[in-house]
Amino acid sequence: MNHQQVMTEYLLAFIEGLKQAEIKEVVISPGSRSTPLALLLHRDKELTCYVDVDERSAAFFALGLAKAKRKAVALLCTSGTAAANFYPAICEAYEAQVPLVVLTTDRPPELHQVQAPQTMSQNQLYADHVKQSNQMALPENSPNLLRYSYWQAYQLTLTANRLPQGPVHANFPLREPLLPDLTLALTKEQQQTFTTHYLPMVDAMIAHLPTEWHQFFSQKGMIVVGGECTLQEARYLHELSQSLAWPLIGDPLTQLANVGIDNPYYLKQADVIFQETNDLPTPEIVLRFGKLPVTKNVMLYLQKLSSLTTCQILIDESQSWPDPLHICQYLLPWSIAAFTQAAKTLVAQSVHSLQQTWGNFWQQRQLLANQAVSYHLAKQSFDDSKASVLLAAFVNENEHLFVSNSNAIRLVDRLAEVAKQSYQTWGNRGVNGIDGIISTVAGIASATQQRLYLLVGDLTLFHDMNGLQMIQKYQLPVTIVLLNNNSGGIFSFLSQRQLAPSDFDPLFATALDLSFEKVAQLYQIPYYQVASEQTFLTALAQSRDSRQATFIEVKSTADLPVALWQDILATYQQNLLKVKE
Amino acid sequence: MNHQQVMTEYLLAFIEGLKQAEIKEVVISPGSRSTPLALLLHRDKELTCYVDVDERSAAFFALGLAKAKRKAVALLCTSGTAAANFYPAICEAYEAQVPLVVLTTDRPPELHQVQAPQTMSQNQLYADHVKQSNQMALPENSPNLLRYSYWQAYQLTLTANRLPQGPVHANFPLREPLLPDLTLALTKEQQQTFTTHYLPMVDAMIAHLPTEWHQFFSQKGMIVVGGECTLQEARYLHELSQSLAWPLIGDPLTQLANVGIDNPYYLKQADVIFQETNDLPTPEIVLRFGKLPVTKNVMLYLQKLSSLTTCQILIDESQSWPDPLHICQYLLPWSIAAFTQAAKTLVAQSVHSLQQTWGNFWQQRQLLANQAVSYHLAKQSFDDSKASVLLAAFVNENEHLFVSNSNAIRLVDRLAEVAKQSYQTWGNRGVNGIDGIISTVAGIASATQQRLYLLVGDLTLFHDMNGLQMIQKYQLPVTIVLLNNNSGGIFSFLSQRQLAPSDFDPLFATALDLSFEKVAQLYQIPYYQVASEQTFLTALAQSRDSRQATFIEVKSTADLPVALWQDILATYQQNLLKVKE
Repeated sequence: MNHQQVMTEYLLAFIEGLKQAEIKEVVISPGSRSTPLALLLHRDKELTCYVDVDERSAAFFALGLAKAKRKAVALLCTSGTAAANFYPAICEAYEAQVPLVVLTTDRPPELHQVQAPQTMSQNQLYADHVKQSNQMALPENSPNLLRYSYWQAYQLTLTANRLPQGPVHANFPLREPLLPDLTLALTKEQQQTFTTHYLPMVDAMIAHLPTEWHQFFSQKGMIVVGGECTLQEARYLHELSQSLAWPLIGDPLTQLANVGIDNPYYLKQADVIFQETNDLPTPEIVLRFGKLPVTKNVMLYLQKLSSLTTCQILIDESQSWPDPLHICQYLLPWSIAAFTQAAKTLVAQSVHSLQQTWGNFWQQRQLLANQAVSYHLAKQSFDDSKASVLLAAFVNENEHLFVSNSNAIRLVDRLAEVAKQSYQTWGNRGVNGIDGIISTVAGIASATQQRLYLLVGDLTLFHDMNGLQMIQKYQLPVTIVLLNNNSGGIFSFLSQRQLAPSDFDPLFATALDLSFEKVAQLYQIPYYQVASEQTFLTALAQSRDSRQATFIEVKSTADLPVALWQDILATYQQNLLKVKE
Repeated sequence: MNHQQVMTEYLLAFIEGLKQAEIKEVVISPGSRSTPLALLLHRDKELTCYVDVDERSAAFFALGLAKAKRKAVALLCTSGTAAANFYPAICEAYEAQVPLVVLTTDRPPELHQVQAPQTMSQNQLYADHVKQSNQMALPENSPNLLRYSYWQAYQLTLTANRLPQGPVHANFPLREPLLPDLTLALTKEQQQTFTTHYLPMVDAMIAHLPTEWHQFFSQKGMIVVGGECTLQEARYLHELSQSLAWPLIGDPLTQLANVGIDNPYYLKQADVIFQETNDLPTPEIVLRFGKLPVTKNVMLYLQKLSSLTTCQILIDESQSWPDPLHICQYLLPWSIAAFTQAAKTLVAQSVHSLQQTWGNFWQQRQLLANQAVSYHLAKQSFDDSKASVLLAAFVNENEHLFVSNSNAIRLVDRLAEVAKQSYQTWGNRGVNGIDGIISTVAGIASATQQRLYLLVGDLTLFHDMNGLQMIQKYQLPVTIVLLNNNSGGIFSFLSQRQLAPSDFDPLFATALDLSFEKVAQLYQIPYYQVASEQTFLTALAQSRDSRQATFIEVKSTADLPVALWQDILATYQQNLLKVKE
């Protein structure tokens, strides 16, 4: 066998391993060194390949695909800086626990450390940000090495999919000539030896809480949820909250606000309620699911609770123990489903005294907070705050909302009402970057093929403008709602706002002065600039009907949402005083 | 002292270290965690700060600045994926040996491993691609820790600037509140203790070659140069070649073709001459300076030379030993200046027999190659090949040419004539990526403030479109000459071209179908589409006079340069036969 045939068999064995481990999608960034793998993956009828020439965008696209599928997606590039461009999305995938199988191709050992072109060390390239990083052997086609190649693909994919899910990496040194033998296929015999059955333990783990815990559920409790939940998980959490009359807190990505449930104990406006915490009562028990939610005020409240009077329990299936407060006394490696089920069983078995007064207190606070928000939104002329609220109410079942980082997620978290309909809300909250958002959205929309509304700021959109190419290329049903305040608006909410303009403007406002109408034209995406509620809703409806991408720009200033927010907080405090009198 | 004051003193000490080690420029990507460092750097009157919101672009911009200055430039970002976006440029800087001081800011230890927002491991973030990576201590303002902070900045910068130059990294964990105390400054006393004088050994190293080497210079020799040279180095190399009648080979970045010297032994068209090597004579000695040049044909020729009959000598000041052939017998850690000077002295001292016949042979080959190129270029209608040649002849003294990777550098290498004028040619040939080119160019133009002509393909321009924002923002005198073949044209020169369109088009041609006129409009850059030599030269002249950025698009197809190249090779072989008859 010649070099090309040996290489081809070796790579076919690897691809067989990927497929056996249920990889279905591959994102390819073209290049020379990756030619054999790219061609063989592209020609495999069981795989769907996407091509993205900007590797940074490609990796975020793969992240979006894998997020939506909840299963590993493969990602391929050539040698050199191409592979370094994958890094931001890999960091996000690691922290957000999204499974990716990252394949980089490399020059062979004899071309390293000699300044050969397009060659750099790809050893441990992604440092602490992958679950595993394998340096593959040079292609050989002995039965042993073919089996090795197959096995690496299989076990790497399992590793990516195992909790906590995350990215893994294999680096392939390949020699020229790089064209594979396209006439070759694995023999039936080979394929038989490349069969592995993965049989995880049947999920019959006994989801029983200790009987003595029934007392916990008679106490004054609070449920705090963070991270990304499924709609089903959100339903379980509402059910638990309602059965105990315990307040429930969670941001847009927990889905609590958009699962179609009107739970009186759900503190949708937690960020208002916990702005001032001096007059708030102390829970005896706090159930915490996953990360802390996006509101900083709730974090500060939890931090102030003494471990002597309040018991905090952390439930986290991934066992990442996301407690920046280092305060939880119980750590439960349980899924939300298992815990809520076990709690339900325990509550049903015991004599249970409902903390109705406690529940009513929080319900009243939520009503007051909601009144303050509604009052000021009604007075507010159309701007980015209002657009965010309208959008969250507009999304239908079988549609999706993606809230970008910085202002977008906060506006929805603070101001949106609980939605009447049930839909999935997405975000990139692993490392909360403003990078790669458009590409992630393109990946999710490719996976679901359902309308996705993106709420995004101007800096974030600019950062990943190349991602628009994927939306255009694959004709994805994405509605971009751009909140354009021509600045890094988040800093107007932060202490940086105190600075003199000579410091603030160049370092934090960072105006782009870019015409996003021209950006939309560049990618042939229909564009609307809207300045009223009515035109905004019309544009949204048109985009829903159009089955293509749409670009809706809402012009605003960085100061408007800050002023609104301060008004809401003041009104809430005033109304609170009236109630107390 | 409060937290803010302690932090401020600690960071001021660091900045003092940077300045003492002669850092003059800082590139800042805004963010929250980096606020104290960004503000203190921005307010320092001795530093010039540039702001770029896309960290990938920012790092390439810094690379360009440092390339042009040949001294370290600092680069700052916030925590999280921001820092990962620096990675591609850091890899290029490491391989191209460009000094950068990379400063990342981080959340403090108590927020790690708990899924706190915008937090990820930044330990050894850049793996093998920095010369040093320091985890800084939390801010303290004891005299010891202030001195430590100062010292880290000073020694890191020295490390970056020491040969081989390259990037270094410091990661700063910082606690809130993040606003520094802007009223603070270092005291006179502190400043006195923060003074270090770096006294390298006076460069009186004895640049003498062993006397017995004089025999080398009586032999049939060849000089092969790669990597990036200065104009002065190019002059030294021409001088050596002419004094020995030895053929000299080097690509655009060696500056040999654009230093205003008409050396008959300079094989400008080496890629033509070495396409067929069977009838080429064997040198007894090959002097190699730095990396191998861009022509693959020369590499294959050198590889075929037996070490028994040809002695290959590698001169490389950086001691990276860039010999992918593992064939050199002598390794000399000398600068080009030192070696050529020593060789000159030795030749002058000894009885020297000039290898005139040997020199004439190569001179004739170059004449023939040049004839073949000129003949076909004269017949060729205006296209990307012709534009490349015209551009290389157009650039004036005190102007600059940047040749992008893939096709651009190859077209200039193969086809351009030796320029009559002297100017600097730039490129990113560390890892030869198609990423970050626009931003690198913006960085170089910021440093020189002189007209820079960029020759670039469509995929490369697309990859770093965000870099155009820096050209616009800083009003840089850049002329972009876009060779738009709507594809990855390089693959049409490679074996991938054999593939069926169903494989080739999606994976290698990767048409973007983008209107670059709209791209130019987006950034308000005057745009010209040119279809003739005359309109091209007029547009170039207008851009020179305009003192602003200009965008010139040359539409072409990927096949045109391939056909031209094949014609040239055929004509050269035919003419060679005629000469031999």
